[in-house]
Amino acid sequence: MLKVALIGSGRMGAFHGETLSRRLPGVRLAAVADPAPGTAEKLAGDLGADRFCTDVEAVWDDPGVQAVVIAAPARFHAGLVVAAARAGKAVFCEKPAALTLDDLDRAIEATRAAGVVFQVGFNRRFAPDWAAARALLDDGTLGTPRLLRSLTRDPGGFDPSRVAPDTIFNETLIHDFDTLRFLNPGATVTEVFAAAGALVEPTWGDRGLLDTAVVTVRFDNGAIGIAEACFEAAYGYDVRGEVLAEGGMASLGDGRRTGLTFSGPGGRTVETVRGDQELFGGAYTAELAAFAAAVTTGRPAEVTGEDARAALEIALAAAESARTGKAVAR
Amino acid sequence: MLKVALIGSGRMGAFHGETLSRRLPGVRLAAVADPAPGTAEKLAGDLGADRFCTDVEAVWDDPGVQAVVIAAPARFHAGLVVAAARAGKAVFCEKPAALTLDDLDRAIEATRAAGVVFQVGFNRRFAPDWAAARALLDDGTLGTPRLLRSLTRDPGGFDPSRVAPDTIFNETLIHDFDTLRFLNPGATVTEVFAAAGALVEPTWGDRGLLDTAVVTVRFDNGAIGIAEACFEAAYGYDVRGEVLAEGGMASLGDGRRTGLTFSGPGGRTVETVRGDQELFGGAYTAELAAFAAAVTTGRPAEVTGEDARAALEIALAAAESARTGKAVAR
Amino acid sequence: MLKVALIGSGRMGAFHGETLSRRLPGVRLAAVADPAPGTAEKLAGDLGADRFCTDVEAVWDDPGVQAVVIAAPARFHAGLVVAAARAGKAVFCEKPAALTLDDLDRAIEATRAAGVVFQVGFNRRFAPDWAAARALLDDGTLGTPRLLRSLTRDPGGFDPSRVAPDTIFNETLIHDFDTLRFLNPGATVTEVFAAAGALVEPTWGDRGLLDTAVVTVRFDNGAIGIAEACFEAAYGYDVRGEVLAEGGMASLGDGRRTGLTFSGPGGRTVETVRGDQELFGGAYTAELAAFAAAVTTGRPAEVTGEDARAALEIALAAAESARTGKAVAR
Amino acid sequence: MLKVALIGSGRMGAFHGETLSRRLPGVRLAAVADPAPGTAEKLAGDLGADRFCTDVEAVWDDPGVQAVVIAAPARFHAGLVVAAARAGKAVFCEKPAALTLDDLDRAIEATRAAGVVFQVGFNRRFAPDWAAARALLDDGTLGTPRLLRSLTRDPGGFDPSRVAPDTIFNETLIHDFDTLRFLNPGATVTEVFAAAGALVEPTWGDRGLLDTAVVTVRFDNGAIGIAEACFEAAYGYDVRGEVLAEGGMASLGDGRRTGLTFSGPGGRTVETVRGDQELFGGAYTAELAAFAAAVTTGRPAEVTGEDARAALEIALAAAESARTGKAVAR
Repeated sequence: MLKVALIGSGRMGAFHGETLSRRLPGVRLAAVADPAPGTAEKLAGDLGADRFCTDVEAVWDDPGVQAVVIAAPARFHAGLVVAAARAGKAVFCEKPAALTLDDLDRAIEATRAAGVVFQVGFNRRFAPDWAAARALLDDGTLGTPRLLRSLTRDPGGFDPSRVAPDTIFNETLIHDFDTLRFLNPGATVTEVFAAAGALVEPTWGDRGLLDTAVVTVRFDNGAIGIAEACFEAAYGYDVRGEVLAEGGMASLGDGRRTGLTFSGPGGRTVETVRGDQELFGGAYTAELAAFAAAVTTGRPAEVTGEDARAALEIALAAAESARTGKAVAR
Repeated sequence: MLKVALIGSGRMGAFHGETLSRRLPGVRLAAVADPAPGTAEKLAGDLGADRFCTDVEAVWDDPGVQAVVIAAPARFHAGLVVAAARAGKAVFCEKPAALTLDDLDRAIEATRAAGVVFQVGFNRRFAPDWAAARALLDDGTLGTPRLLRSLTRDPGGFDPSRVAPDTIFNETLIHDFDTLRFLNPGATVTEVFAAAGALVEPTWGDRGLLDTAVVTVRFDNGAIGIAEACFEAAYGYDVRGEVLAEGGMASLGDGRRTGLTFSGPGGRTVETVRGDQELFGGAYTAELAAFAAAVTTGRPAEVTGEDARAALEIALAAAESARTGKAVAR
Repeated sequence: MLKVALIGSGRMGAFHGETLSRRLPGVRLAAVADPAPGTAEKLAGDLGADRFCTDVEAVWDDPGVQAVVIAAPARFHAGLVVAAARAGKAVFCEKPAALTLDDLDRAIEATRAAGVVFQVGFNRRFAPDWAAARALLDDGTLGTPRLLRSLTRDPGGFDPSRVAPDTIFNETLIHDFDTLRFLNPGATVTEVFAAAGALVEPTWGDRGLLDTAVVTVRFDNGAIGIAEACFEAAYGYDVRGEVLAEGGMASLGDGRRTGLTFSGPGGRTVETVRGDQELFGGAYTAELAAFAAAVTTGRPAEVTGEDARAALEIALAAAESARTGKAVAR
Repeated sequence: MLKVALIGSGRMGAFHGETLSRRLPGVRLAAVADPAPGTAEKLAGDLGADRFCTDVEAVWDDPGVQAVVIAAPARFHAGLVVAAARAGKAVFCEKPAALTLDDLDRAIEATRAAGVVFQVGFNRRFAPDWAAARALLDDGTLGTPRLLRSLTRDPGGFDPSRVAPDTIFNETLIHDFDTLRFLNPGATVTEVFAAAGALVEPTWGDRGLLDTAVVTVRFDNGAIGIAEACFEAAYGYDVRGEVLAEGGMASLGDGRRTGLTFSGPGGRTVETVRGDQELFGGAYTAELAAFAAAVTTGRPAEVTGEDARAALEIALAAAESARTGKAVAR
């Protein structure tokens, strides 16, 4: 049994904890750590974890813990990765792995020095549509990409007072930046241009909160990518992708909740997906399964620190472009 | 210019009249005939027809008229076909071409004796989906059919006091019977079983009005077809088909009004088609274009009196089966 | 932990065993029983079951086993249900729960007498589309059904020498018969008519093997249902349903493998589902989760012996109708 | 009868000529003018036009001609509009109405001075999906747009030696720029950023030929639009649109050739549209019908010279942005 500790017991932490506890044969949820009083205890109890702690040091010191899943707030990610690596634990870290390139470089270096697996939470790579599109690229069906699109639309209902200004770039669109790279394998970003605004919460625009953005990403193989995000879609959670390539087009992201269609006086209707855990439940599980497999087999992680770094570079350039109004060369 | 007279100026007559008058190059609407006072005059005026008459004899006697389109009530069809043929006019007749096999045989014989084109209004054969499915059969992609389905659902709003008891078989499902034959080329019907009821207007069921029916049709090549009809669908006019064959399946009848999709709080919605002239406007035009071409080129009609007879045979067997509760062998 | 024994280690047994072992929190795979030498041992080893046995008596005698999942060949089902009930075990039995009404009545009676949960494997009721359609009936959106359709198409590749003649009715279409009942809640079947043939394997038709069938099922609320099956579809495993009701239509069974669409020189293509465990993996898991919940909470099973009996009655009537060519009243 | 002359007998000219000759009741194709020897004569003969000429002056001088449809090469458009207006003819002009703002201003001024109808060929406004999306904006269902997308992908096979460098902006994307405006009613463009390249014909990139482009268009109501184009899509002619607004999303452009789906060993396939006249045949007809109606009723044109000017401004800004790599403010 691979013993994995969970660090962070918020919304995503709870889902990852359930996966570690219940959905992965051969994996055991060894501990839940969270400094907020009571939360680790509660989640550990609910999931039957072996132990809980409010001080993450207890995880580092636990020789029975072989790996950690980091789902703490983003600003703590890099430090936690470094500490985990120094303690010799394999690391799965939610995205973004860091908020600055320096921090991320330190995290990558620490995991490399420790020789531990370091995987980052770009879960879409494990979703069936995304994996199938990549397969069409890998087997040559699509050929070289020309135009790419990746978008994320959240179902709304966020509290603007709790969202940092560049969140749309480094927490939301970072998924799309990774998707654009994933669907243009081997290509390098050369230029980033962002147009962004506060369209959902206009009154927060003055405080710098961006909730809607379009980012143009150019690659060295000529392909042009578009990443779009909006914090509110009236119809739910919408994540899609598109690759127009020499051999055709792949369209990703069906968005249907079930296969049922209701035809009534108003026409023909299908229900739409309402949240990320509903849409990507399987992908969240699959990424942890892949992480566990990498740890136990010694194979490299399928999503690396370098992948995280490349996506963060785009996110930082996009934020800069949104501020300056100019395209940013990389 | 091919001069065509229209006989019958009701709902379908008006549409065919428009087609003859406006949509077909090389065709001219020479006359409109209808015994109901004023209706032929009105339609002829609206469409710029050369003349109108309340006595159809005037059409037979008009040497300038080369062809007629019969869109009178069904019970007059066979007699009109015979009269037209005797007058030497090519005949397009709305379905059903007759209500009894004897009548239809007389009509077929009259057109044959006169050597005139005789085409029946099975318009679906001219709709793009249906034609494309047939092409997949003709080119061998599908192979031999095993299971077929054809259905018609009207948008409701009919007046039960004006509908004859067997209408669902000889006016509605006769389209589906033809479709089953069209999509199982060369096969002959061996048995018919019908289950029918008054589900839309239950109080009319006692008077024999059937508004919902399912008919199983067996063919001599083993294929089993299902024809379904209902006089009311809350979502509009729905006509679909399906062929499961050795090589795969063809599914016909998209049912969308436009290609627009609206995603809102209630999910993802497309508008549905609401009426036959909306769905089959192109097919109604195409069948008259084919008729005109047959008349002017001397080529045989694409839908023949024999096709009408075969469909009528199924309709009569279905009505008998619905009455007796037994399968009817042919 | 609910300790469940698995009886039968074939294709479905293996899947249910995996579910019991890995996918259900609070459930433990206590034993695997199969008389075939080595198979129970192998599966028990793969899944980490507590024990295995070739003699099912060992399961009845094991006081630690609270429930059994029966996935043996159909002809043994009823006897195993009776024995399990007498041993005081809760019973989940794959469909068909029996091959005759007498056997099934004995099984129902035994479980009733023992006061144990008895659930039958109509897994589609637990699939999202089917559950959602039923919800539209339960909340009144659809209103009273008028026309229903349920179909099953297997991906082919079966060995005709190993298929009993009426398999299409009592093993395949029995799912569709249950679906028709599930989607017409509270209605009772009044008449069954079947048309069937050997279209996939014509040479086996002489030996009575039917591989293609269409069954018309009439209900006492007037609704007419159609159940269709074919043992081969070139495009994979296809299970769909449709309810036309007063308020509109529900269409079930999307059939897509993923949400990815590839548009290339040949048009726009989506991959189709290829097997039952791929399509219904979640439903197979959900039905065992519901069974475990019924056992541990004391709530009644969601699919009962009476449901199994009603579906079997239709299957037997369909087989009779196929033989006699006559509609069978119930 | 409204007598309309056609100027230009190329691919689009021929289609418009057919429409004028055959598809519009109340309209007559009075003349075909084209300086290329023989082409006007040929087309006029095929369509039964009253006359033909190689010198367009003959059209201006013909008092029987009330309106003209200009389908000459783009560089002649503005001059022809001015001449037609001075001759007192109502003008329908294919897009782009001019290649420079000065030229277009002269054309607008000439039509205004002459008091003649001036309509520009933004046909998509007349396509059902586009009109339906606009209706959802006009009736308030969608609310204020936030993100818009419009794309054009041609089926390829173009001859790069015959394409001017900025064609992608002023001939192709000009449709998409108009669509973005059409779907964001009343808003004004504030900034344009273009990323473009030669991905289909890389060797022509050095000569300045751009065949793939992504243009970000910002509006004064905050909405961000994306216009994309590529001269080659392996799957045919693809025109789509999308509006994410406060109330939901409209998705336009179904792309299916028919409603038929074929499911076979390779999955489920629908045919895709292969050309603009196939996809927009109805819209091309509807725009001329609207033009004829404007001329005969005296109502203003539905697409004006000002619309053409606004789209051209974006196209010119996009071309400048593609050259300079900088966003262009308007």
